[in-house]
Amino acid sequence: MLTHAKIKQFRSLQQKKFRLLHKQYFIQGEKIVHEALKTGNQPDYIIANEQLLKKHPEWETYKGIEIASEKQLAKISSQKNPADVIAVMPYYEPELNVDWLKTILSIGLDCIQDPGNLGTIIRIADWFGISDVLCSVDTVDVTNPKVVQASMGSLFRVRVHYVDLALQVQKIRASTDNYTVYGTYMDGDSIYDKKLKNKGLLLMGNEGRGISQALEPLCDEKISVPGYPREGTAPDSLNISVSAGIFCSEFRR
Amino acid sequence: MLTHAKIKQFRSLQQKKFRLLHKQYFIQGEKIVHEALKTGNQPDYIIANEQLLKKHPEWETYKGIEIASEKQLAKISSQKNPADVIAVMPYYEPELNVDWLKTILSIGLDCIQDPGNLGTIIRIADWFGISDVLCSVDTVDVTNPKVVQASMGSLFRVRVHYVDLALQVQKIRASTDNYTVYGTYMDGDSIYDKKLKNKGLLLMGNEGRGISQALEPLCDEKISVPGYPREGTAPDSLNISVSAGIFCSEFRR
Repeated sequence: MLTHAKIKQFRSLQQKKFRLLHKQYFIQGEKIVHEALKTGNQPDYIIANEQLLKKHPEWETYKGIEIASEKQLAKISSQKNPADVIAVMPYYEPELNVDWLKTILSIGLDCIQDPGNLGTIIRIADWFGISDVLCSVDTVDVTNPKVVQASMGSLFRVRVHYVDLALQVQKIRASTDNYTVYGTYMDGDSIYDKKLKNKGLLLMGNEGRGISQALEPLCDEKISVPGYPREGTAPDSLNISVSAGIFCSEFRR
Repeated sequence: MLTHAKIKQFRSLQQKKFRLLHKQYFIQGEKIVHEALKTGNQPDYIIANEQLLKKHPEWETYKGIEIASEKQLAKISSQKNPADVIAVMPYYEPELNVDWLKTILSIGLDCIQDPGNLGTIIRIADWFGISDVLCSVDTVDVTNPKVVQASMGSLFRVRVHYVDLALQVQKIRASTDNYTVYGTYMDGDSIYDKKLKNKGLLLMGNEGRGISQALEPLCDEKISVPGYPREGTAPDSLNISVSAGIFCSEFRR
């Protein structure tokens, strides 16, 4: 029974402090709920309208099924056009394994603020088979509804860690000599001329001010996506998630 | 003097029908207004708060300067946090030159619906020196405030044309034998294995259903960004603007 108190609790998950408190977040829409279940993620609640529940009899095997009216879904939802289903998911911080990290290419994000960018970068990581994303603690929260939305289900396949990036890199380096940090800079070397290793960290900075000064000494290489040579005015930069896609493509091609 | 009637007229430019009627659109924020002026685009009006007008005495050389209160700017604006300045720009449809198009790489967009995607793709085109984007007539309007916002000023350097894509390609082909249409498909050939020519059309389809069937026969090559090989569940796709960035990077590298 979907009580007023429950609606209030679910709705509170729009706010980070309540997500942290309850260790829960929500996902919205049939497609992403399907993706969660497909990847073996067990929701605490599935809140859906009657029609959609009839369409998915398999959902009834889960605990915490709630029938909701359109109005009730709208009360919980963070979207202008509320979805037919919202699922409340438990949030576990993924385990961080240095012995694994030192053998792979992962992405480091220093203070990414836009939830759409973080979600899109998680989707890119997933596409290119990058299993781990390391975020500075001041990066936007991965359970933010807009991050979840933009990640399109990829957050169920990619581990997102919140760490002290400098400390984490030091830990990895303490156990291997063969680990490269690639810092992305507007004036870095052209990525097309670099021999890129598939082991290390692709480090990207904040949308406005780039990689923080404190992290600059970590970077073994500074790389960039060069703009096309031209006369006259030129654009400042590429969108950070577009750059992330191009960098990942260059590492994996 | 910023009359109520003027505010109403400017505000109406949030809607496509009024943008078409008045052949005007608006841009919001100091940075993009600066970009417009830098690239020689003359606004019909600059509406700004007093403080910002004092900061930019050079704006006084333009006609149509209006001092506005925060409240008045909020009435015109399409943003949650209204900017300190809004400029009303005249809209001219750019000239389409087949003799030029047949010598360059351009981007074709078939029914792109999300304004953020169109704006980001215009920014990508600009970064990679692609001067012309051809949009099907059912693609989102380039003067939509969200497109303008996402393009970050690049719409002043890239020509965006609304055309019948099939007809346009036929016209180009009538005057050259050497023109390749690269259609982007989920199951296309890996872009990493293709020899790409810097002359032709990079054609991308709608966010949900891809390139429309009617345009498929146009495509000389079908290309894709291959996902990383894996066991288990995999993501459906990359975001279209991220893919556009990767395709353009591959053409230009």
